[in-house]
Amino acid sequence: MQPEAETPHVVIVGGGFAGLSAARMLSRRQVRITLIDRRNYHCFQPLLYQVATGGLEPADIAYPIRSVFAANKNVTVLLDEAIGLDRQARSLHLKQSGWLDYDYLILACGATMSYHGHDHWRPHAPGLKTLKDALSIRRRVLGAFEAAEACNDPTQRQAWMTFVIIGAGPTGVEMAGAIAEMARYTLARDFRRIEPSQARVILLHSGDRVLRDYSPKLSQAAQRQLEELGVELRLNQRATAIDDHSVETGSGRIESRNVIWAAGVSAVAIARQLELPMMDGGRVPVTADLSLADAPNCFVIGDMAAARSDGHSVPGVAPAAIQAGKHVARCIRQDLRLRPRPNFRYRDRGSLATIGRNRAIAQFPLLTMTGFPAWLVWALVHVALLIGFRSRVVVMISWIWNWLTNRRGARIVVGRTRCSAQTPSEDMASSASVQSRGSD
Amino acid sequence: MQPEAETPHVVIVGGGFAGLSAARMLSRRQVRITLIDRRNYHCFQPLLYQVATGGLEPADIAYPIRSVFAANKNVTVLLDEAIGLDRQARSLHLKQSGWLDYDYLILACGATMSYHGHDHWRPHAPGLKTLKDALSIRRRVLGAFEAAEACNDPTQRQAWMTFVIIGAGPTGVEMAGAIAEMARYTLARDFRRIEPSQARVILLHSGDRVLRDYSPKLSQAAQRQLEELGVELRLNQRATAIDDHSVETGSGRIESRNVIWAAGVSAVAIARQLELPMMDGGRVPVTADLSLADAPNCFVIGDMAAARSDGHSVPGVAPAAIQAGKHVARCIRQDLRLRPRPNFRYRDRGSLATIGRNRAIAQFPLLTMTGFPAWLVWALVHVALLIGFRSRVVVMISWIWNWLTNRRGARIVVGRTRCSAQTPSEDMASSASVQSRGSD
Repeated sequence: MQPEAETPHVVIVGGGFAGLSAARMLSRRQVRITLIDRRNYHCFQPLLYQVATGGLEPADIAYPIRSVFAANKNVTVLLDEAIGLDRQARSLHLKQSGWLDYDYLILACGATMSYHGHDHWRPHAPGLKTLKDALSIRRRVLGAFEAAEACNDPTQRQAWMTFVIIGAGPTGVEMAGAIAEMARYTLARDFRRIEPSQARVILLHSGDRVLRDYSPKLSQAAQRQLEELGVELRLNQRATAIDDHSVETGSGRIESRNVIWAAGVSAVAIARQLELPMMDGGRVPVTADLSLADAPNCFVIGDMAAARSDGHSVPGVAPAAIQAGKHVARCIRQDLRLRPRPNFRYRDRGSLATIGRNRAIAQFPLLTMTGFPAWLVWALVHVALLIGFRSRVVVMISWIWNWLTNRRGARIVVGRTRCSAQTPSEDMASSASVQSRGSD
Repeated sequence: MQPEAETPHVVIVGGGFAGLSAARMLSRRQVRITLIDRRNYHCFQPLLYQVATGGLEPADIAYPIRSVFAANKNVTVLLDEAIGLDRQARSLHLKQSGWLDYDYLILACGATMSYHGHDHWRPHAPGLKTLKDALSIRRRVLGAFEAAEACNDPTQRQAWMTFVIIGAGPTGVEMAGAIAEMARYTLARDFRRIEPSQARVILLHSGDRVLRDYSPKLSQAAQRQLEELGVELRLNQRATAIDDHSVETGSGRIESRNVIWAAGVSAVAIARQLELPMMDGGRVPVTADLSLADAPNCFVIGDMAAARSDGHSVPGVAPAAIQAGKHVARCIRQDLRLRPRPNFRYRDRGSLATIGRNRAIAQFPLLTMTGFPAWLVWALVHVALLIGFRSRVVVMISWIWNWLTNRRGARIVVGRTRCSAQTPSEDMASSASVQSRGSD
């Protein structure tokens, strides 16, 4: 056995796609690895929206990080949080465990929702970045239909049944499609006083087409598929004010109790905490090998980094994060062999976005697809990318079941839904024998 | 169509086994049904302990109540809570919707944990009655191993790795067995500083044998199987004090950060809220047909009721609750036909309790089983009793996977674990390059 002092210590912050892929590659090398995450699991973010809309459960898309590395004795997993960094002393400050020295540091902390300076919108328009967010949105969405069913005022009822999704990137499009499907099919027969299919799903987007990373032709296909599901597209519109009851846009006010934010992320919070340089948009600038300009032993990857490849900026998608993780693992190996590091090159193997059942778009280097074929490819690729045999099987069964029955298996809300503050009116009294009376 | 006024209105409070079975039977009759529950799902309580120990996810054992009755237009489901009752006026007071008149009332509100007058123990020794409880216990149990891994003080570390389960009924036995298995097998290789298999699981019981509803021979078999898993049985011992760090018993103090309460339930809270009569033990006394003595149109069933059958008290188990639900549906039908009501008779078709993988006991009228055969019967019966095709398939796959790999698929904690308040010691500094230093 090599003495510990000679084994380089690689500290990785973040167990998302980027951090996990770096740790997996490095775990086979002669390095000691400490992988730090605030949570005990790796989350498959592309399917978060399905947890939010009751199609899947958290454990279906999450995998315990410790289990990934159970066999790799050179990997230590810490449930902790980075709160400071001393690049000079090569030491990272952890909330629970104090200072941790490193030879190499890989920062892959991801990003959080960015409200572009309107942080007071956050409580009214939650975003979807974590499993906790997903369960909270699920509670809001299902609770909204319950509140509408219990509500006697037609205006208020319509506000409960109006869903505004802000931002038409992949998450916004998926959420809009999933909520529209839920209202139209899944919940269709479940209520007695409301018609869930009358719910309005409005997709507000500041740009002139949805999914702007795709070709205009595919954007159009996506828009057509959204409209088939009854989603109201409002392009070239921005939210100018959001509160608990409404969204103000340039062209009018929308009464809605359900606003979901999908209009951008940034890494500002963690970059500031660790005193890293920052670019516009809150990403951390990196060199061609993904390290910091003044600290070559310190890499920043994933959504946190403003990486460039072949003159283009690298998108914040899972395949790019995985490739970046592998790249820094390769750089460290080259360093240890005293060989030069390669530059990072992002290979775009194609993109997939789903709108709903049988509805998706796919853009590959030599081929584009829409509708059912694209959806099938999307489903197969996502099942294949999940970690863990159990997750793959459970997700596949859930989807087959959902596809056959239009039901969603995880439509349960643990914890309380928002209460609707209303008094029973005569309408309710006559239809369900509920009478207004003083409390006893 | 019959005019509404002539159709009797049956109000059912509680969507557990008892309430759901009554509603299902009655949904085929000429009655209007309003089913009220605080939650939007029916929970299969016998498998709650598997959610608590990371084997299953909430949606695997929960089913949306609205979906059960989607096709029954005479059933209205309300997400609400009973807060008062006027038996004279035949009206139930709901938190959200005000007063609701009924012709028949079926109370099936279940029970909550009873701390036998020590309600201040509740925060230190949570019980397991709801999915929220289950997720909270999961967070505590998995968090305890994380805290132990991060802990430098050997005494504190042992306290984090000591689990005390109070009460050796079915829930206590299942929890003790599942935690012991998790420590011994599931988590065995996941940590670097602690040996999860060194965790102590102590089952404290005031009686002289576990699972006292079974024959002494089967109790002994259960005890043997628990001891094989390394569970320490402490019979004839009661907790006399519980705080966040320890449990005091007649014969000494156990340092433990993880105490779980499984020593009894009562219906006191809801019975008091609705001003119902109460017996010792907090159950509501009912007549031979399960109605209230002074209100024959008001039934109390399930864990809430102190029902008797053939001179014996009816146990608080799922089959008894289901039978009681069917019985009151039959009584109401007889009333409507102006025929006499039958008396309730509980048919004990057998009992099953599981201790762990391949470990269980089964007691049928003509046959008893232990070990693998009992476990197999337990597993098949519980899969068959789940509502919904998706749940059955997912639970079956999860169990097969768990059985083959000893892993638990739902070992993830959404939300924060308890933080261990400790400062890094030299031990940690040397083993993981963590150094104590002032914060920057």
